[in-house]
Amino acid sequence: MRVSQLLGERYKERAFEIESQNLMTRGGYIKQVGNGIYSLFMPAKRIARKIENIIREEMDAIGGQEVLFPVVMPASLWQQSGRFDSIGSELLRFKDRSGADMVLGMTHEEAAVHLANNVAGTYQKFPFMIYQIQTKFRDEPRARGGLIRVREFTMKDAYSFHTSQEDLERYYELCHAAYERIYARCGVPEVISVKSDSGMMGGKVSHEFMLLADIGEDTIVICPECGYRANMEAAESILKAETAEKEQPLELVETFENKTIEEVCTFLNAPQKQSCKAVVYQKESDGGVVVIFIRGDIEVNETKLRNLLKSEIHPAAELENSGLFAGNIGPLGLSSKVTAIYDRSLLSCKNLVCGANRDGYHYTGLNMERDVGKVEYADVAKAVEGGICPNCGKSSITIKNGIEVGNIFQLGKRYTEAMGMFYDAADGTRQNPIMGCYGIGVGRLMASVCEAKHDDYGPIWPMNIAPWQVHICALRADNEQVKACAEALYKELADIGVEVILDDRTVSAGFMFSDADLLGVPVRVIISPKTLARNAFELTTRDKSVKRDLPTQGAAKEIATLVNELKHQ
Amino acid sequence: MRVSQLLGERYKERAFEIESQNLMTRGGYIKQVGNGIYSLFMPAKRIARKIENIIREEMDAIGGQEVLFPVVMPASLWQQSGRFDSIGSELLRFKDRSGADMVLGMTHEEAAVHLANNVAGTYQKFPFMIYQIQTKFRDEPRARGGLIRVREFTMKDAYSFHTSQEDLERYYELCHAAYERIYARCGVPEVISVKSDSGMMGGKVSHEFMLLADIGEDTIVICPECGYRANMEAAESILKAETAEKEQPLELVETFENKTIEEVCTFLNAPQKQSCKAVVYQKESDGGVVVIFIRGDIEVNETKLRNLLKSEIHPAAELENSGLFAGNIGPLGLSSKVTAIYDRSLLSCKNLVCGANRDGYHYTGLNMERDVGKVEYADVAKAVEGGICPNCGKSSITIKNGIEVGNIFQLGKRYTEAMGMFYDAADGTRQNPIMGCYGIGVGRLMASVCEAKHDDYGPIWPMNIAPWQVHICALRADNEQVKACAEALYKELADIGVEVILDDRTVSAGFMFSDADLLGVPVRVIISPKTLARNAFELTTRDKSVKRDLPTQGAAKEIATLVNELKHQ
Repeated sequence: MRVSQLLGERYKERAFEIESQNLMTRGGYIKQVGNGIYSLFMPAKRIARKIENIIREEMDAIGGQEVLFPVVMPASLWQQSGRFDSIGSELLRFKDRSGADMVLGMTHEEAAVHLANNVAGTYQKFPFMIYQIQTKFRDEPRARGGLIRVREFTMKDAYSFHTSQEDLERYYELCHAAYERIYARCGVPEVISVKSDSGMMGGKVSHEFMLLADIGEDTIVICPECGYRANMEAAESILKAETAEKEQPLELVETFENKTIEEVCTFLNAPQKQSCKAVVYQKESDGGVVVIFIRGDIEVNETKLRNLLKSEIHPAAELENSGLFAGNIGPLGLSSKVTAIYDRSLLSCKNLVCGANRDGYHYTGLNMERDVGKVEYADVAKAVEGGICPNCGKSSITIKNGIEVGNIFQLGKRYTEAMGMFYDAADGTRQNPIMGCYGIGVGRLMASVCEAKHDDYGPIWPMNIAPWQVHICALRADNEQVKACAEALYKELADIGVEVILDDRTVSAGFMFSDADLLGVPVRVIISPKTLARNAFELTTRDKSVKRDLPTQGAAKEIATLVNELKHQ
Repeated sequence: MRVSQLLGERYKERAFEIESQNLMTRGGYIKQVGNGIYSLFMPAKRIARKIENIIREEMDAIGGQEVLFPVVMPASLWQQSGRFDSIGSELLRFKDRSGADMVLGMTHEEAAVHLANNVAGTYQKFPFMIYQIQTKFRDEPRARGGLIRVREFTMKDAYSFHTSQEDLERYYELCHAAYERIYARCGVPEVISVKSDSGMMGGKVSHEFMLLADIGEDTIVICPECGYRANMEAAESILKAETAEKEQPLELVETFENKTIEEVCTFLNAPQKQSCKAVVYQKESDGGVVVIFIRGDIEVNETKLRNLLKSEIHPAAELENSGLFAGNIGPLGLSSKVTAIYDRSLLSCKNLVCGANRDGYHYTGLNMERDVGKVEYADVAKAVEGGICPNCGKSSITIKNGIEVGNIFQLGKRYTEAMGMFYDAADGTRQNPIMGCYGIGVGRLMASVCEAKHDDYGPIWPMNIAPWQVHICALRADNEQVKACAEALYKELADIGVEVILDDRTVSAGFMFSDADLLGVPVRVIISPKTLARNAFELTTRDKSVKRDLPTQGAAKEIATLVNELKHQ
């Protein structure tokens, strides 16, 4: 390829806050077509294809069969699984010309069961795994960050089918290891897996693969002591009960217009962790009001709460008929119309501030065991920095942000049961297969690598996924000798199978280098009248680890050797 | 791959009339998900990927830049080009969660102009070509024939941009040649290009690439004398005027209830080609009624009529207010409320039967020049077998059926003007680029190859696109020696880069061979106790051109050589 012909413009002006979005827009990789919808220019498409090929090789290596499911599916498939009704408006629904209900695939469990159904009738066919690399659409309300969170995206999604939980677990580990190889080959071996919540997928065990990054939307709970890692949504929260001071008596105090826990604690001169906060939700299933009592300095983890209640929830808006006094809600004398849930953070707590269920009043000196008595405590709290690791028990929890670049789920029989897929088991019975599913978003992985591997001037693409391997800068391309050398090297490299892009424009060195930085090609060769005067090209790497002269004689071979070395770094 | 693990079932029962649909369904290649919507099993996906790679290589070879456009696009893009309103319900329209109008891409001219706009501002950037291989959706009312005509399909679509018509024409020829190489490499060098009508694409010159096949939905006009080829929709129709008999006088005759041209001619004992038939249409633009007068034995070509009228048309249903007598319409005394169009087939015709514009009456002896006088004649007729070739003038026209497996269009400025794409020309003026576009449907090409290359037992895939290159049949896989030899050969072939599938099941030879026939792998190696007794494997090809023993020693190398030979056939 020649830069003179490459479609896409590169420019200097900072375009966006998130660095990968900024650099991939400024570098001529992506162009927005609509909210969360992008076209890819050639450099991005080349990176995407390389990532896809790495994924394909690793999926094939664990016995995957590449198939293709449709983007547009009849709603009937999703009605069979029950998800046509249970998934919100991120599932795009529409009618075709005949009035039939259709959906745009945002995931393909239904399609996978449909394909496998009736063609895997006996246990001998198992296990098997099918996967595709295909466009998906999720009508995401919060598209952001370029390719980080989009509505339309290319995804590898894989589905495995098993006759036993043990076999699923064995394969799940195989796939986990394949994912680690994929990230390593894409240049981000630092991606870690964390336990996650299975959400709308169903199933129990699941992991997310996370690239730690400040801009990440996921919060990850990590124990540096023992290696415990979990998504905040799934992380158990354990807190040291505060050491008991001298026990105080329960006392009703007037707190006037102080309502929030901050206001009340400030007014009463109590630390927030010495309070019992009330957070009120409403269940979407039956509209029931739920009051969560939790230590004042801890936040509610809505995912855990949702799982506990087995219902979607939303913050309660109308408290009028619930008998609750907003800002003064407490465990003592609570209206019987609402459900109370006690978070584990309150276990054995003493001397707490809490609402008195009376407008303008709170209690001080609340002793959970003495005053509230025997109640069940649940874990509905977000883990906090310095919390106790549920694995090793040390107070070593740290909290990080991460970008989710893949996920794997043990689905169980959720879909095969709902959609009536059976096989004849070895013991003669009819059984539903047990499934796992495994996803990686190609575009998000590309953007995440950019997020992890860049400097102020542009992306630093790892060799295995770089749009090209070598970038020749012909400085003073109008100089006959430079031109001839550049063209000869360009041809020679291409002939020995090196992927090379040649900047053949007559532009200034600064302009040319800044474009090269934005294209992020790992190896750069500079040819100019100056370098030729010393019978050399200048060889550098985008990451600045190499900078040396290269004799013009035998240059192509030496460049190819460097490319090969960088492939295996 | 092992057949024992391959997902998909093969069976004997004839499933569909169209042979490619029948074999690809019976062979475990495709599974219908909805009307015109299919999933692909592994063998079909492998064939599709090979076809895609051949297309990609040929597009890259003519300077194409692979990009990616979205499947889902904001309607605003299509409103800019005017096609949001002008295209019928095959363009799938819907609203997203925010209520915005969206479309599913059925073609990507708008997206291509959007991507190129503002990044090709000066003439130096031109020409360039961008292409993608991506899923498309066309809400096709007549899905049929498996992958032959579907609603969702994978397509390669390319868009070239030029600063002059000459440059477009030069590139158009390059692309035409690339298409010929693509079909040849896919094993169907017999695909021919024919002139076509540009339809909804806009632009003037276009060609379709056709695989001749009885099941083809396109009708192609061919002159075996001079090589003239055109789609029926675009083929000029030239007929020899019938030799003048003795001129008869115009005479009004009562024809009672005889209305159709067949009834009238039978009643009057006149040949149909000695009649002037009236066909009535209505324009969708203004509802105006149009009467086509055409020789009784010739059919109206609606595409030509549509182009002549510059309006969509439909057969007229209501003639009440038009002053027409259905079944008795003729050129003399025709209601002034309707537009009359005379097809060239009537030019200089004499002694014709025609309607008399009076219920129950026709004329005989109509002489076009004498009685109708000076009118303009247009070409709105379908070409017929034995018609005159518009190129060489011989009466040699033959009519064939074909499957359209690709098309190329000279679009002109239709989209760049409508969407406001400009560049600075060498002369300092601002200009709209001139475009070409070039499509190939991957799935349809796969099905067409199957249609062209099969026998009664299954597809005979050409080596370059076959799902695997070699199929090992281990007859009596329960025999230790057979098993060991088969596994060793399987491994050896895979190690030297041959794509091999091993049938390792303990099933009968008949069952195994019939499955192998349906998988259509070009080279087959049979290993059985019998062949081993003579220290050999049996080597055959799916097309039956090779059948011989292969010494077990050095078998893998010899097989690889045969594979390589078949690649270059």
